[in-house]
Amino acid sequence: MHGGQHWQPQFPKAPLMTDPLRPGQTIGILGGGQLGRMLAVAASRLGLHVHIFEPGANCPASEVAQTTTTASYDDTDALTAFARSVDVVTYEFENVPTAALDAIEALCPIRPGRVALATSQDRLTEKTFLQELGLTTAPFAAVQTKDELDEALTRIGTPAILKTRQMGYDGKGQARIMTPTDGPDALASMQGAPAILEGFVNFSHEVSIIGARSADGAVACFDPGENVHEDGILRTTTVPAKLSPTQRTDAILIAARIMTALNYVGVLGVELFVTAAGLVVNEIAPRVHNSGHWTQDGCLIDQFEQHIRAVAGWPLGDGSRHSNVVMENLIGDDMDRLSELSGAGVAIHLYGKAEVKPGRKMGHVNRIVGPAG
Amino acid sequence: MHGGQHWQPQFPKAPLMTDPLRPGQTIGILGGGQLGRMLAVAASRLGLHVHIFEPGANCPASEVAQTTTTASYDDTDALTAFARSVDVVTYEFENVPTAALDAIEALCPIRPGRVALATSQDRLTEKTFLQELGLTTAPFAAVQTKDELDEALTRIGTPAILKTRQMGYDGKGQARIMTPTDGPDALASMQGAPAILEGFVNFSHEVSIIGARSADGAVACFDPGENVHEDGILRTTTVPAKLSPTQRTDAILIAARIMTALNYVGVLGVELFVTAAGLVVNEIAPRVHNSGHWTQDGCLIDQFEQHIRAVAGWPLGDGSRHSNVVMENLIGDDMDRLSELSGAGVAIHLYGKAEVKPGRKMGHVNRIVGPAG
Repeated sequence: MHGGQHWQPQFPKAPLMTDPLRPGQTIGILGGGQLGRMLAVAASRLGLHVHIFEPGANCPASEVAQTTTTASYDDTDALTAFARSVDVVTYEFENVPTAALDAIEALCPIRPGRVALATSQDRLTEKTFLQELGLTTAPFAAVQTKDELDEALTRIGTPAILKTRQMGYDGKGQARIMTPTDGPDALASMQGAPAILEGFVNFSHEVSIIGARSADGAVACFDPGENVHEDGILRTTTVPAKLSPTQRTDAILIAARIMTALNYVGVLGVELFVTAAGLVVNEIAPRVHNSGHWTQDGCLIDQFEQHIRAVAGWPLGDGSRHSNVVMENLIGDDMDRLSELSGAGVAIHLYGKAEVKPGRKMGHVNRIVGPAG
Repeated sequence: MHGGQHWQPQFPKAPLMTDPLRPGQTIGILGGGQLGRMLAVAASRLGLHVHIFEPGANCPASEVAQTTTTASYDDTDALTAFARSVDVVTYEFENVPTAALDAIEALCPIRPGRVALATSQDRLTEKTFLQELGLTTAPFAAVQTKDELDEALTRIGTPAILKTRQMGYDGKGQARIMTPTDGPDALASMQGAPAILEGFVNFSHEVSIIGARSADGAVACFDPGENVHEDGILRTTTVPAKLSPTQRTDAILIAARIMTALNYVGVLGVELFVTAAGLVVNEIAPRVHNSGHWTQDGCLIDQFEQHIRAVAGWPLGDGSRHSNVVMENLIGDDMDRLSELSGAGVAIHLYGKAEVKPGRKMGHVNRIVGPAG
């Protein structure tokens, strides 16, 4: 497996963790949502302790973690105490503020590292990085002014989509431009934030590949899954995905190349568009990923344990797929359907969120469709 | 499925829980060892909260439970507060003191119920119950005096084994009687405790069947596993067990008959000797069982979730086996072998116990041998 090394770390050297964590040592996790919760459960299976750092009270992860710090990401004292109390820090979301990372990194290794975070926090940086690796992305251009937008629209054409460079998720911070006359309104909706114009990709379906890379550079990927979104939120992931053997191999090579270039340690999600001309990288997420939840019931070792193993300096586990699975997210009042969600081949996973809100991810269901094939 | 109904509850009627628990409600668990820990993780998967009651500090289950009460089983105030804070109580061990159960039962349903506990807490009661159900056990006799022992040895013969009726586990409180002259020493080793003499059973191997029964009386059994003990402690469980199709069916019918007779709600372990004349019931455990740990990686829904589902009043899940598995306990300094325990088909489960002691169960490993067959 080889990867281009164009991308250079721009951060001070972090403390290096050389030995694997021993049972009883502690992983700090930034973020206490459902991903942190499922990471904490995976850590417990390996005898590792977990310390959650999360601004919100009564977060899902705190229910299964030994320790929780409830504090803001700008509370340097709390971050310092947190970093001192753990052996390595990881995170369940990519938008961790830079100042928080600075405070932690002086005291404790962060896995995956700062480069992966900085890359994925900014759509322009991410797409530039991917292109420099020789991977295909949607055509894109940085846009902050009316002139830049006009120039970009001339080059990329319409339809296109204008997105804030930072902090977007689940379709937020985005405006479609169907014809050039939509440009001014789209730009205004960015409210002055640096933006990126992306051309539309003509794709047949979306797949994602969940890769893992250990501290010693070994790479393992889960089988690609096929994703269906509704209103910008993942609705289902199906494995196996509709892919030719070549496309499946390409997906794995893309994930491996990205992880190697970032000197990545942990689990990474890569969303890919399937087109007649090949796979186009949509975006990367430097963390466990909703589209990898099927691994909990389709593999011996799931994405959460794989991430914990990597972060803890352990060898990766056996993530080969033993079953065909359809994962369905339970969103908002899908929770009312709980009583139907039983029976043969059904595994429910709930996140312990007290309040049901429209669009809120409350849990998911993995349906086993049959043995792997 | 039918079961004899000779066995009558002898306890005051407990509060009945009629509706299934909703996500966010709480299961109380008596005992905070590894079984409580794995039950707590299963509960979290279903969005249920867990409150552990355990006399020892820093117990394995507390690390993954929302709430832990550290108090003695004779602390009525603590038990009362515990029972008031939860919606249903279950347990990870059968030797819960009767007074503790009385304090809880006045306030909160206990699942599995008191009859199952009383039956399994006393070897004589248990064997009498099993015989009244028409099941085969080792020949046995109650023994407290020298005369009773002589009479029992005359009837049952040697070799035989004298056991305390209560509180024995992992081979403790037992004395072998190879010839009648061993009798007095064996009796003396009981230190005046009521005892039971059991005849030896000539068996080829031991299997166990892990059954589950829901609140509405539905029964589901996991595939029987084949057990190997060393020094009285379970070493490995292998599925599938060496059993003829008829023996496999018999094992399931035995578990179902026992659970139905006890009006059981939860998971029950039944140890069986395989003999030329059929299956002989060795003992029953009214809880999740070490010999069922293979289900974590061999089935979609494991014994821990099955128990939580039953106790919560949910329908049972799909516990059919998708893989052949060998479960190996990690005992004492087996922990030193952790670095070998990686690679294809291997899943590690550690209990987070701080101190390694000889004979102490520190974790287990499930090795996937292939797809179910």
